[in-house]
Amino acid sequence: MSRIDGRKFNELRPITITTDFVSFAEGSALIECGDTKVLCCASVEDRVPRHVPYGAGWVTAEYSMLPRANRERSQRDVSKLKLSPRSAEIQRLIGRSLRAAVDLEALGERTITIDCDVLQGDGGTRTASITGGYIALALACKKLVEGNILPRDPVKGYVAAVSAGIVDDELLLDLCYEEDSRAMVDFNCVMNGQGELIEVQGTGEGRSYTLKEQQDLALLCSKGIRELIAKQKEILGGSHR
Amino acid sequence: MSRIDGRKFNELRPITITTDFVSFAEGSALIECGDTKVLCCASVEDRVPRHVPYGAGWVTAEYSMLPRANRERSQRDVSKLKLSPRSAEIQRLIGRSLRAAVDLEALGERTITIDCDVLQGDGGTRTASITGGYIALALACKKLVEGNILPRDPVKGYVAAVSAGIVDDELLLDLCYEEDSRAMVDFNCVMNGQGELIEVQGTGEGRSYTLKEQQDLALLCSKGIRELIAKQKEILGGSHR
Amino acid sequence: MSRIDGRKFNELRPITITTDFVSFAEGSALIECGDTKVLCCASVEDRVPRHVPYGAGWVTAEYSMLPRANRERSQRDVSKLKLSPRSAEIQRLIGRSLRAAVDLEALGERTITIDCDVLQGDGGTRTASITGGYIALALACKKLVEGNILPRDPVKGYVAAVSAGIVDDELLLDLCYEEDSRAMVDFNCVMNGQGELIEVQGTGEGRSYTLKEQQDLALLCSKGIRELIAKQKEILGGSHR
Amino acid sequence: MSRIDGRKFNELRPITITTDFVSFAEGSALIECGDTKVLCCASVEDRVPRHVPYGAGWVTAEYSMLPRANRERSQRDVSKLKLSPRSAEIQRLIGRSLRAAVDLEALGERTITIDCDVLQGDGGTRTASITGGYIALALACKKLVEGNILPRDPVKGYVAAVSAGIVDDELLLDLCYEEDSRAMVDFNCVMNGQGELIEVQGTGEGRSYTLKEQQDLALLCSKGIRELIAKQKEILGGSHR
Amino acid sequence: MSRIDGRKFNELRPITITTDFVSFAEGSALIECGDTKVLCCASVEDRVPRHVPYGAGWVTAEYSMLPRANRERSQRDVSKLKLSPRSAEIQRLIGRSLRAAVDLEALGERTITIDCDVLQGDGGTRTASITGGYIALALACKKLVEGNILPRDPVKGYVAAVSAGIVDDELLLDLCYEEDSRAMVDFNCVMNGQGELIEVQGTGEGRSYTLKEQQDLALLCSKGIRELIAKQKEILGGSHR
Amino acid sequence: MSRIDGRKFNELRPITITTDFVSFAEGSALIECGDTKVLCCASVEDRVPRHVPYGAGWVTAEYSMLPRANRERSQRDVSKLKLSPRSAEIQRLIGRSLRAAVDLEALGERTITIDCDVLQGDGGTRTASITGGYIALALACKKLVEGNILPRDPVKGYVAAVSAGIVDDELLLDLCYEEDSRAMVDFNCVMNGQGELIEVQGTGEGRSYTLKEQQDLALLCSKGIRELIAKQKEILGGSHR
Repeated sequence: MSRIDGRKFNELRPITITTDFVSFAEGSALIECGDTKVLCCASVEDRVPRHVPYGAGWVTAEYSMLPRANRERSQRDVSKLKLSPRSAEIQRLIGRSLRAAVDLEALGERTITIDCDVLQGDGGTRTASITGGYIALALACKKLVEGNILPRDPVKGYVAAVSAGIVDDELLLDLCYEEDSRAMVDFNCVMNGQGELIEVQGTGEGRSYTLKEQQDLALLCSKGIRELIAKQKEILGGSHR
Repeated sequence: MSRIDGRKFNELRPITITTDFVSFAEGSALIECGDTKVLCCASVEDRVPRHVPYGAGWVTAEYSMLPRANRERSQRDVSKLKLSPRSAEIQRLIGRSLRAAVDLEALGERTITIDCDVLQGDGGTRTASITGGYIALALACKKLVEGNILPRDPVKGYVAAVSAGIVDDELLLDLCYEEDSRAMVDFNCVMNGQGELIEVQGTGEGRSYTLKEQQDLALLCSKGIRELIAKQKEILGGSHR
Repeated sequence: MSRIDGRKFNELRPITITTDFVSFAEGSALIECGDTKVLCCASVEDRVPRHVPYGAGWVTAEYSMLPRANRERSQRDVSKLKLSPRSAEIQRLIGRSLRAAVDLEALGERTITIDCDVLQGDGGTRTASITGGYIALALACKKLVEGNILPRDPVKGYVAAVSAGIVDDELLLDLCYEEDSRAMVDFNCVMNGQGELIEVQGTGEGRSYTLKEQQDLALLCSKGIRELIAKQKEILGGSHR
Repeated sequence: MSRIDGRKFNELRPITITTDFVSFAEGSALIECGDTKVLCCASVEDRVPRHVPYGAGWVTAEYSMLPRANRERSQRDVSKLKLSPRSAEIQRLIGRSLRAAVDLEALGERTITIDCDVLQGDGGTRTASITGGYIALALACKKLVEGNILPRDPVKGYVAAVSAGIVDDELLLDLCYEEDSRAMVDFNCVMNGQGELIEVQGTGEGRSYTLKEQQDLALLCSKGIRELIAKQKEILGGSHR
Repeated sequence: MSRIDGRKFNELRPITITTDFVSFAEGSALIECGDTKVLCCASVEDRVPRHVPYGAGWVTAEYSMLPRANRERSQRDVSKLKLSPRSAEIQRLIGRSLRAAVDLEALGERTITIDCDVLQGDGGTRTASITGGYIALALACKKLVEGNILPRDPVKGYVAAVSAGIVDDELLLDLCYEEDSRAMVDFNCVMNGQGELIEVQGTGEGRSYTLKEQQDLALLCSKGIRELIAKQKEILGGSHR
Repeated sequence: MSRIDGRKFNELRPITITTDFVSFAEGSALIECGDTKVLCCASVEDRVPRHVPYGAGWVTAEYSMLPRANRERSQRDVSKLKLSPRSAEIQRLIGRSLRAAVDLEALGERTITIDCDVLQGDGGTRTASITGGYIALALACKKLVEGNILPRDPVKGYVAAVSAGIVDDELLLDLCYEEDSRAMVDFNCVMNGQGELIEVQGTGEGRSYTLKEQQDLALLCSKGIRELIAKQKEILGGSHR
């Protein structure tokens, strides 16, 4: 079966990561995966939420789609006075995933907030947010070290994410919107540089799936994540970790 | 290693399911998994949200914790004017999981809302909500058939859920709160009666985990879910499907 | 006239009070008055709202109905982003009533919050909340004394509540939902162990009523409240006050 | 005991009612009871809330204090995104009380909303809102008849309200703020032209009170309400009912 | 062309300013411009928002219309859980305008909040709020000096405001609602006692306008503002500045 | 005096307008004025708000800053459950300004919403939103004509906007953030292709200003707006109007 954009089943969409697309944030990256465009900004603040253990830091994320990021305009969250439940789910995922990349004790009593704003959404916005958010996070941490605010980089290792899915009984990597909307099974995978899992969300939207299929989807994702982490290394200089 | 409550690594907590604990809902069940108690009520309404295809029905869920369900009192959502993001994430999971159990076309233009209110939370409240919510859902559908509103039961098959985790490098089934708060990896699994996956959420909170560990956690869950579905069959008469 | 459930005009519905139905709260009671079921939990916190005089404590209440507590499902308050005005009115009543039972100076700088969550509502939920909330409150105070946090019990005396009404020109005690919806006059009474009034809310919904009828309704309520307080004494051991 | 403003125990504060203080509303009255000033406006709209029986009308009320109505400025409800629970309680009381004055069937499918905005609050704002709101309501109904929209006036009879209380063991009528803040028992009474009760709210804030005291407080109120209704008659021409 | 109310093109509506219409606020004025009635109250509080420089004070405003201030009833902001965007725009304008009248350093660490509540709106409510709000502000500052809280009056000079507009190609001063709703160009002007501009808002609602017209509108306004400031001086005694 | 970025007093910052930066919207433009970057998207919907006259269309705008558009991170509106009053003020200005460019009757029963999301804010975001929003609007209208949905372009003429200000008694065009924060007078001007005014907002933040200065500021703006409209013509082909 050939894919709508001619890719092979295990091929990522073209990735572009533009660092410093905006310049006020401590770290920022515009990530483009095919037609999906997410602006990721990392902000460092010298305070932590209450639940954080004494002396440690925190990493959190906020995710939002611009009203016309999609094929149809949607109302702003503030107009409905509600954070969209989908955004709530996604920003919790991004936060957990990026926290896994950071030694929170080494960060000290600081919060890094990763704002992921989807300028255009064509599938895979949550995984693009994690992959791009990681760059923003790493750049912000680098700045903390370069500014002698931290003695060493609190980033422990690479983290990237990609989706896979089962469309017409075929396993495909990195679904675009059109594929995603036809997928029977949707699988989002966050991994580190060692190919180990940090987060998995699998959903049998159209049918259930077997443990074997779960494993195959995860393997497919690990192939894509290796390539994404190679890209991250290239951008960040790969010096640290 | 012995568990805090003396269970074996692959042993569920005692389960009690009381149907008709409240009587106005079309279907209801109070599910108790150890000290976790969730009241699940299914309400049938003759209208569907806009996005539902013509002629089809919908199944959705709402999840909430009573303010004193936990060891410490928490503020009500309405006091904060915000659905807790955690509740938003969980109710989306419950909704997706239970929709997988239902032939939405056979349901017709109806919405079944499953309200899952946690009276007491000692770990595993989201999976208990799915297992108990399924009972409420099935009872409500049964009533639709018995009342000659539907010609046949729209429930396609069983759905139940359980958690597993890695605590001190040991894989454990059905974590209680104390185990959950010490778990390095947290894994929630929703399966059907054929042992196939409907939803998976895995989180490496304390460390990353391997594809092999993912598979083992899923297998452990499938053992627990088999027992939960046996319990569901017992309660529902097992006649249908 | 015989009542719908065969009771005499001055007869309460069967009362069941289950203490420790949930176990994390400092005090808790599931109160059932006929088909009305309210879960009451008392939480103790070591701080008071600003308006409380220095050194004194506070008792407050929150009241809510689960979405399917009634014959029809209702939206959650958080979905509407508004505390229901009816709930606002009721929780202020519960708070005032239970504060009357407590020596706030003896409580010290603590707040006891009584959460009254209606699992099923068949009339009389506000009065059941007061009667059951009192048990939760008294149990929490007992625990403060037993834990040597307070030298003596700050509960000054018993408090219970019941409704009465005029249905078809007949005065009836403890209206169930069906009676309540046909009542011309609705009367809610909170009294102490000496048969004195703490709160009264009378409403001529269908017609006005005379001062004489007001007195008779209050007398009818005092008969029911005596029985409710006897029940409270039985449960609490009656030792204190 | 002499009262702070020299009144006798059973004496009302001076009452001024200015009709048409504002002119766009279908009916309006600025009521002043001592230093308490409430602007009451009645608005007629040709639709009713869903719960109203077919063909019938509805009367409802909204109550609010201007931010600087009191000795200290308070935040606006909209700044807190919450209707104050006290306002919620009071506007429900006003609505119920004024509905008792109207034949809702005769009103037809119309809603009359009585907005009671407290410009200055010196005690007794809820009862002033009812007494003044009645004038606004009656004027609006008069206009419906004069405009040939209704064949006959749907107002069935007079309704007015006043407070009483027990201060230093003395029963006093129409408490001002200073008396109210020292009252042990606070009693609000709504009555019709026949001296019958429509609503009663009694609160033992500082101590409990006896059935006898309840009766005496109601009698004291009935004296004040007779005078208030005389005032209403004077203003409205007394022609109707 | 003759105006609807017989005024000349450059004539203000009759102005009445009643100070101390309410008495709890530190300063208050009921301003009536024709049928427009705005109650302005100044409240002094001993704290400032965070953004204010150390040692300095702050002046801010809140603006709201009562629900029946207009020809049709409108919903309260709190019912919509949103400050109306129009109110937001207007209260920012009032705040900026009145801050221009005050030496914030001389005010010290205090906030003066000017609440402008429109009891009846017949055009020009924002400019009436500024003119009347100035009186409330000046009275409150006078009280601070008289009470020896401040050594000297922080009010630097007079501030008043008026609207003008182009209706049927004619420039008119102080539009009433009917004129305003037909105006092609709407112009709001805030000036000081020297006839200099503090704020201008010009809107070509029906057509664009020339720089020459802008100047003429401003001149027309300056004529009206001179008269308004004369009125302010008369009321305030004109002693200060 | 030389400006911080070396510009002459009447010189605009470099302008870049990228059309189709995102591709789902009916029209879109990323406008960059110096370091200010605003993404403007026009969405066409086949319905109009209630207040719009029968048969006519509507143009409205929404304005928002991404949380890290500024030097410091700010909370999202949805987190505060409030549209920022500043955003409310600005989006009303943008909406009024762009409506002036459109023949609403020719648009037919359609709403065009212009979303202006500030990716980076370095002063002049409201005027950049108008200038860029105009491009998005014009592109969307062009598409309606090209798609034969409208017989002729409803855009009547050009509209652009720029700020000016008085800094150290010097009149400067197009203030950047640093200049803006030191400006004594801030002036925002919206004009059409004929150099006529559509909207003016002038604020004497640090001092009052004369009618003569007002005129000079407007003239300075008209010089900048001529250049901005030249740019717009270049991008849009200048064919229409």
